Amino acid sequence: MHPLTTKFTALMNIQSPIVGAPMYFATTPDMVVAVSGSGGFGFIAAGFESSETLKKQLQYVRSKLNVAAGIPLPTGVGLLGWILDKTEISDDPRIPAVLDELPAAIWFAFGTNLGKYVEHVRAYDEKRDPEKPHKTLVFVIVNSVEDALRAANEWKVDVLVVQGTEAGGHGGASAPPLLNLLQGVLDAIPTDGPAIIAAGGISTGAQIAALLTLGASGVVLGTRFLFTPECMYSDQMKAVLLDAGLNSTARSLAFDEINRTAMWPEGIDGRAIANNILVDYREGKLDLETRLKKADADKANGKTDRLVIWAGVGVGHVKEIKGASEVLRCLHEETVAALITIAQLQ
Amino acid sequence: MHPLTTKFTALMNIQSPIVGAPMYFATTPDMVVAVSGSGGFGFIAAGFESSETLKKQLQYVRSKLNVAAGIPLPTGVGLLGWILDKTEISDDPRIPAVLDELPAAIWFAFGTNLGKYVEHVRAYDEKRDPEKPHKTLVFVIVNSVEDALRAANEWKVDVLVVQGTEAGGHGGASAPPLLNLLQGVLDAIPTDGPAIIAAGGISTGAQIAALLTLGASGVVLGTRFLFTPECMYSDQMKAVLLDAGLNSTARSLAFDEINRTAMWPEGIDGRAIANNILVDYREGKLDLETRLKKADADKANGKTDRLVIWAGVGVGHVKEIKGASEVLRCLHEETVAALITIAQLQ
Repeated sequence: MHPLTTKFTALMNIQSPIVGAPMYFATTPDMVVAVSGSGGFGFIAAGFESSETLKKQLQYVRSKLNVAAGIPLPTGVGLLGWILDKTEISDDPRIPAVLDELPAAIWFAFGTNLGKYVEHVRAYDEKRDPEKPHKTLVFVIVNSVEDALRAANEWKVDVLVVQGTEAGGHGGASAPPLLNLLQGVLDAIPTDGPAIIAAGGISTGAQIAALLTLGASGVVLGTRFLFTPECMYSDQMKAVLLDAGLNSTARSLAFDEINRTAMWPEGIDGRAIANNILVDYREGKLDLETRLKKADADKANGKTDRLVIWAGVGVGHVKEIKGASEVLRCLHEETVAALITIAQLQ
Repeated sequence: MHPLTTKFTALMNIQSPIVGAPMYFATTPDMVVAVSGSGGFGFIAAGFESSETLKKQLQYVRSKLNVAAGIPLPTGVGLLGWILDKTEISDDPRIPAVLDELPAAIWFAFGTNLGKYVEHVRAYDEKRDPEKPHKTLVFVIVNSVEDALRAANEWKVDVLVVQGTEAGGHGGASAPPLLNLLQGVLDAIPTDGPAIIAAGGISTGAQIAALLTLGASGVVLGTRFLFTPECMYSDQMKAVLLDAGLNSTARSLAFDEINRTAMWPEGIDGRAIANNILVDYREGKLDLETRLKKADADKANGKTDRLVIWAGVGVGHVKEIKGASEVLRCLHEETVAALITIAQLQ
């Protein structure tokens, strides 16, 4: 693999600027192994799992990647702010347990006070054995220029994940399209600030090359990695993805209602396949209980038109299932090829 | 100016891949002169003007650009399909009158049967004096992959303007974001098909470089040229634009209602500054007559919060007014600089 060197790849000590998004309900430890093991950077997606489960997942990744104990893992853990608000005051706080496993990075998303958790990470690293120092790199997802300025200036994060409205799964309900949001963040954050990486709707190497040209130093792909055997989506859900086009998704809170996960902070919603869940919701005639019954019944009957299938706009570009490791390598080579082509323009 | 050579610039015989969009109510012949005269390509925006007025505008551009009679003009005319449906069956059809002035290109947008007008152009060119042949290049705006395939395969257009949801003024109500729509069109159209240029939300050279890297061979900017003395927007409207951010615009039919221009084909709406026009509309309590009265009263009182101000998402990146010719040159140099930077990455 022809390595690409950017501010982000240098910071992470990786060969490819491609990050696999932490996707709860979709990412598996095997997906993380494939992405981190092929030159990119993968994130485990934490939901409500116990510390023990998260530690086991990290230990599994360590063993599969053949990284010796005591050496930082070239992988990360994605944590949700509103879940941390519950777990970190419980008798089983997740952040210290996770950090104990030496992940290279932690990714925080969707909380009303993520700064507090950034502090937890910094404090944990401060207290490590001075003989074995480790700085956990902190990623925070941002959906506006204001978010980016706060994360950079107040929380001093290491990496800003700039997520446009195109992104699948959860994100800012009023996030601008990526081509504008990324430009806005690049204009607002000084070059000696956090590394800036782009997320949302990205499924091809040409798009990655474009975003690097715009000024991102890395990219995050989620939906692209749903089309892999490593993704925990069912074959039925993957068949829906394979059929989807550029207008097959929509942002709405309707999906979380049916998923029984409608506890996200204000201003956050989710993008998923726009199926009958959305039709029912927009018609506005059925109460939630009735809508849940319809969705449960359809699911029980093997139908797909009321399944919650989180996916981004980039779902429309992918027409095959292949291994996550091959996906990463192909995307990287497509990116290099697009950059070589454009370099020849001048 | 360091010229950039792409399939599009070669086709148009221009030095910069930047096109000034035809913006009815905004573009002036002086803006067209500035853009075409500085290495880019400008379009006059035709609405309901008579043939005589359009011819006069083209003659003015010809004189300002010092292009001798009989030589094709390095500029175009943008025509709206739903207006052509009325004018071309009148006793003053616009297409032949415009073609008589030898514009290099014609741009068709927003009609239920644009293919018919493409045929009119081809037929007119066929009948020209064989001693003075001229092929008018036909641009058509597309908001979906299906639109692009029809325009390329059935209508055999020369240039596809791929317009994402970010675009200001009129466009497809369900157009995907540009980074995805452009990728989709590039995948669908063979390399020996029409030139593919990108439109929507573009205000910076870095964005232009990104879109060229993705595979566009040119770009169309509209909103960026609103911030010029050549734009016919009032100073008051320009002041609103200068204050706008990345979340200041929205797509809606509400603006056309207040503008008394709600006669666009199905599936088309417009993006403008999201002000009280939109608030009134979304509340759904006031009938159109009352909303018109409120807007008229606000306007009469010098208020800006119910003015119809068409603008794209890229409005958030521009913080100064300067001449259209300088805008074009700066954008071009920023584009070249971004391409040189990315070429050094490898």
